[in-house]
Amino acid sequence: MDRPRHQGMAKNTYMRWRLPLVCLLWEVAMIVLFGVFVRFGAEADAHWEEEKREMNLTSDIENDFYFRYPSFQDVHVMIFVGFGFLMTFLKRYGFGAVGFNFLLAAFGIQWALLMQGWFHSFKDGKILIGVENLINADFCVGSVCIAFGAILGKTSPIQLLVMTLFQVTLFSVNEYILLNLLHVKDAGGSMTIHTFGAYFGLTVTRILYRPNLEQSKDKQGSVYHSDLFAMIGTLYLWMYWPSFNSAISDHGDAQHRSAINTYCSLAACVLTTMAFSSMLQKKGKLDMVHIQNATLAGGVAVGTSAEMMLTPYGSLIVGSISGIVSTVGYVYFTPFLESRLHIQDTCGIHNLHAMPGLIGGIVGAITAAVATEDVYGKEGFIKAFDFTGVYQTRTPSIQGGFQAAGIVVSLLMAFAGGAIVGGILKLPVWGDAAAENCFEDGVYWEVPEDEESDVYHMHNPDKAAAP
Amino acid sequence: MDRPRHQGMAKNTYMRWRLPLVCLLWEVAMIVLFGVFVRFGAEADAHWEEEKREMNLTSDIENDFYFRYPSFQDVHVMIFVGFGFLMTFLKRYGFGAVGFNFLLAAFGIQWALLMQGWFHSFKDGKILIGVENLINADFCVGSVCIAFGAILGKTSPIQLLVMTLFQVTLFSVNEYILLNLLHVKDAGGSMTIHTFGAYFGLTVTRILYRPNLEQSKDKQGSVYHSDLFAMIGTLYLWMYWPSFNSAISDHGDAQHRSAINTYCSLAACVLTTMAFSSMLQKKGKLDMVHIQNATLAGGVAVGTSAEMMLTPYGSLIVGSISGIVSTVGYVYFTPFLESRLHIQDTCGIHNLHAMPGLIGGIVGAITAAVATEDVYGKEGFIKAFDFTGVYQTRTPSIQGGFQAAGIVVSLLMAFAGGAIVGGILKLPVWGDAAAENCFEDGVYWEVPEDEESDVYHMHNPDKAAAP
Amino acid sequence: MDRPRHQGMAKNTYMRWRLPLVCLLWEVAMIVLFGVFVRFGAEADAHWEEEKREMNLTSDIENDFYFRYPSFQDVHVMIFVGFGFLMTFLKRYGFGAVGFNFLLAAFGIQWALLMQGWFHSFKDGKILIGVENLINADFCVGSVCIAFGAILGKTSPIQLLVMTLFQVTLFSVNEYILLNLLHVKDAGGSMTIHTFGAYFGLTVTRILYRPNLEQSKDKQGSVYHSDLFAMIGTLYLWMYWPSFNSAISDHGDAQHRSAINTYCSLAACVLTTMAFSSMLQKKGKLDMVHIQNATLAGGVAVGTSAEMMLTPYGSLIVGSISGIVSTVGYVYFTPFLESRLHIQDTCGIHNLHAMPGLIGGIVGAITAAVATEDVYGKEGFIKAFDFTGVYQTRTPSIQGGFQAAGIVVSLLMAFAGGAIVGGILKLPVWGDAAAENCFEDGVYWEVPEDEESDVYHMHNPDKAAAP
Repeated sequence: MDRPRHQGMAKNTYMRWRLPLVCLLWEVAMIVLFGVFVRFGAEADAHWEEEKREMNLTSDIENDFYFRYPSFQDVHVMIFVGFGFLMTFLKRYGFGAVGFNFLLAAFGIQWALLMQGWFHSFKDGKILIGVENLINADFCVGSVCIAFGAILGKTSPIQLLVMTLFQVTLFSVNEYILLNLLHVKDAGGSMTIHTFGAYFGLTVTRILYRPNLEQSKDKQGSVYHSDLFAMIGTLYLWMYWPSFNSAISDHGDAQHRSAINTYCSLAACVLTTMAFSSMLQKKGKLDMVHIQNATLAGGVAVGTSAEMMLTPYGSLIVGSISGIVSTVGYVYFTPFLESRLHIQDTCGIHNLHAMPGLIGGIVGAITAAVATEDVYGKEGFIKAFDFTGVYQTRTPSIQGGFQAAGIVVSLLMAFAGGAIVGGILKLPVWGDAAAENCFEDGVYWEVPEDEESDVYHMHNPDKAAAP
Repeated sequence: MDRPRHQGMAKNTYMRWRLPLVCLLWEVAMIVLFGVFVRFGAEADAHWEEEKREMNLTSDIENDFYFRYPSFQDVHVMIFVGFGFLMTFLKRYGFGAVGFNFLLAAFGIQWALLMQGWFHSFKDGKILIGVENLINADFCVGSVCIAFGAILGKTSPIQLLVMTLFQVTLFSVNEYILLNLLHVKDAGGSMTIHTFGAYFGLTVTRILYRPNLEQSKDKQGSVYHSDLFAMIGTLYLWMYWPSFNSAISDHGDAQHRSAINTYCSLAACVLTTMAFSSMLQKKGKLDMVHIQNATLAGGVAVGTSAEMMLTPYGSLIVGSISGIVSTVGYVYFTPFLESRLHIQDTCGIHNLHAMPGLIGGIVGAITAAVATEDVYGKEGFIKAFDFTGVYQTRTPSIQGGFQAAGIVVSLLMAFAGGAIVGGILKLPVWGDAAAENCFEDGVYWEVPEDEESDVYHMHNPDKAAAP
Repeated sequence: MDRPRHQGMAKNTYMRWRLPLVCLLWEVAMIVLFGVFVRFGAEADAHWEEEKREMNLTSDIENDFYFRYPSFQDVHVMIFVGFGFLMTFLKRYGFGAVGFNFLLAAFGIQWALLMQGWFHSFKDGKILIGVENLINADFCVGSVCIAFGAILGKTSPIQLLVMTLFQVTLFSVNEYILLNLLHVKDAGGSMTIHTFGAYFGLTVTRILYRPNLEQSKDKQGSVYHSDLFAMIGTLYLWMYWPSFNSAISDHGDAQHRSAINTYCSLAACVLTTMAFSSMLQKKGKLDMVHIQNATLAGGVAVGTSAEMMLTPYGSLIVGSISGIVSTVGYVYFTPFLESRLHIQDTCGIHNLHAMPGLIGGIVGAITAAVATEDVYGKEGFIKAFDFTGVYQTRTPSIQGGFQAAGIVVSLLMAFAGGAIVGGILKLPVWGDAAAENCFEDGVYWEVPEDEESDVYHMHNPDKAAAP
């Protein structure tokens, strides 16, 4: 940076005391709260042998760990490598993409273990955790990673941590309303993760609107190798999405079915994305932005219904539609949102998560509404929708109505929460960069001097010797 | 591109209507066929609770999902990241490598679910699918990814889709002949996947011979970072190959044994590859082409025999030999094939898949032929080779003969099929690029303007300011 | 390379006969030894059906394969992609980082199967192997990958193979002393893998001290994209560390608990690393070196105690501390070690493995010492520490003492072994490069000519045409 600009930046973006303070205070708070509240669940506790006897389990393989740990690891990869590398497409923001995603997710999972724990795993004053809690914490943080996509390159790490704190909290409340109060099914999180996360992020970026962002327009694009790094993220998200949608489904057929439906939906989505990517451009060439993102819409769009009897052909239909909607979104909606609604959506999460999330919620509501005992079997029907206890008398069509209500609640929470959090993030104390320094790692990172010419000379000294 | 060349290209390679049409028609066909034929198998269907009772299963953990899903995900990574990134070694064809591989595999798995379903999972007019079908679909598409390696950089995406359509069909027929008619064992696909896929691809590239390909010779090499991207593909293929070879083996010891044999074979293969890579060059330096490819030959070469009692030392021997053969192939055979037989094999699949695949088939035949009840145990012997029903009287040496026949059938199918499909792909309607534009992403992709100098200046404004 | 320098190099670093000879002799030795000693264990042998009956197992799912294979694959990824890519941060040593790591690990796992097999799986003159042996071989080699980090860029591949041979041997002896003689718990290898591996490597690099290393100082840094490649390694190590620490723990609660503790520790570690990375620099900017490395210290530091009742908040504390120690180490200790103690530690393994490994050993000793039947349950207590047979009377505090002794033994083995092996590697016959050629792939690898300018011209012919 030339000196004057650097000094200008320094005023705003100097992180030396603010960032460490936030991180350390936060970690101390986590330690205290974990100390007070968090303990091992029965299947991770050393009393497991006794537990096994009580539950009449004959083998250690019945431990939930063996049902869910492989899926957990896939989800874990999606959150850290998937989302992290997906966002490295920017030519000069790779450190921020993968590094800040790392920071906010590591920060968020701790808070999510607590928040979700209080709502769902609280017993005798303690939060009892097991592998399912780890998956849910990753899921919760996934919604923050989505929102991060909208504001990528325009916010300071402190803003991201503040957003994470609030978003995880709101996510947990919204999730509680949907799953516990409305008794809604949403194992892959079309509503709780994608719809909520995306509209939350879009609202935040609307509030943080930067009128002069074209000053850093030159850095908003990709270079050849940054597009390849991003494809690492894309492919891991795409490949492991069947694990994502099935990770917390019921043991047995539900996990199995979720994986198959998601696999089918994603395969179809790739074809319609490629078709529309080529069709919507004069030159008919494929656009990496679409391939990197819209191919994933099929996973989002079956998030709610994958564990239901959506059927493989139903999955193909949903996947096909979501690929089209998402690609069309990148070509037409994103520019419209920016120019007319002042929503600057760096990664196009509106196309990858918001619209497909809505589709997912709607498809879930319909699939639930048309469910019959004939299709599911008597036992399967009750098990699939948990029509037990107070929900014994719920009919599929009523369930469909509640599912639809879940979409509305998620949207309201996202807009209201996003507006409030956006307002907080607008305060001039968080150290975000000036418009001309957006999308530039040098603001918050020590960036190596790319003395490329020197490298080449080292390598080709004959050339270097030439005048 | 300068204008005149671009106009020349546009005549040939304009994809705007052709590619979308093929993709969309295809996806509609898939939806219809899936709607008519594909349903969930018993272990993924909501009737699973009843199924469990009928089959006397006491726990959900007995669902095939838990036996095979982790291996499935590893195989999935191999197909999409493994093959995709392995082919990014070309300096200007990374988008095509990873993107077209993504396209053809997503296209192919849908068709493979149908084709293989009709042959193997057809019951009462329906194809019943479960996790094993997903693995098999990935396997089938793996053979297309292999063939893609031979024609990488020289074909249009439409050609790839047409090839996928036919190759998946032929693969399924060949697989049916081998597994069902000849009753051959080939869990890791040395014959069905590698031998068939590679000779199919080599035949296709022979038919598509381009005499002027040296016009794009400058783009056939790698650059420093493209070689590192390719190593991502190599390592994921290498690490997950034990899962590949064990994914559809029988539950229990067979899966366990396959993984161990493959692990051993691959480890040995790395050492002999490194040895010969250094030995065969005057300067004694290691060549990344060998490390990226020949290190994998050990996985191919135990594809048939890994689930048999090949034993760890047998695996070391097979792995060692295949590493040597493959590396020697890269140094001597590939140039020979190109100059004498006019087989232009971009990725050297002859060395990585064809020859090791043949070795794998032969080793499998021998290992089967020498099997004894002593080594396998009475029950293990019958189970390992499915010597039940009409095959009750088959002896190991007869089995060995059938295994050898399986190699021959696979070769014949590959040559005949490759010749026909190559002929179809030679028609001048598919939009392939001119020789001088081969190995260049710009033909089919929007490629970002690499204003590298600007990037550096942004980053080092002091320098930029210098005159 | 300019000619005079190249000739100078050729004298030293010509690998053509030495490297192949070592690799091939070694592989032949492996084949012979495997032929004599290595057989399938009961769960991978075709006699499994009989074994199942004898052990009263009702299902194939009880095969150890299904308990450990997913974790094994995660560990496998850590060794080959994790360590391999973590070390690609150097601007001109990516091939060496990922390629030599590949070579030494493939070499080492074969020898480790034998060495560890003789100590732990030897029965009636045969080594009986299963998936747990594969994990342990990967673990053993992990300690060599760690030591490689200290000497990265300064050694020939032959030196690495020689070091691997000796280090695997010493590792196995040390492991035997700890696990069998001292009856110490160390499932995640804080002592056996990290403390031993790191101090061994540091001793070796001390012996190999190069006074003129500043001659290649210009190549010791990173470039923008090499830092992103390194983040692939970092994230895979970080994400899969819960699998690493739980891979060989007892079935059931112990595996489950290890994963949770490690997950918590790592999450906390990221926050304190980010905090101190920013705090310890005048400009307050984050340093990729810290993010790439110190974030992983939390996994190392709970390696011994993760399977114990460390509890989630205990894990947060340990992770927080280790992130701080590690980051401080990079800023203050590494320069000190180099300037005062002449320890040139390329990757800073002292900060990532040595100090956190010691912390891990100590935390393990304390956690064992304070264990009570109340916390573990009567059965859980005995099972967790294997207080059976001759160890029936061991108390927690005595166990803590033995754990502490394990640290001391590991340190002594590391120093003594490292000194001897360092002395051997100092012999002038192994072909290491001159100081000015360190950290340069061109010495041992065919490196593609990066005619970058040509690439850009191809791509932007208009520009190329400009004068």
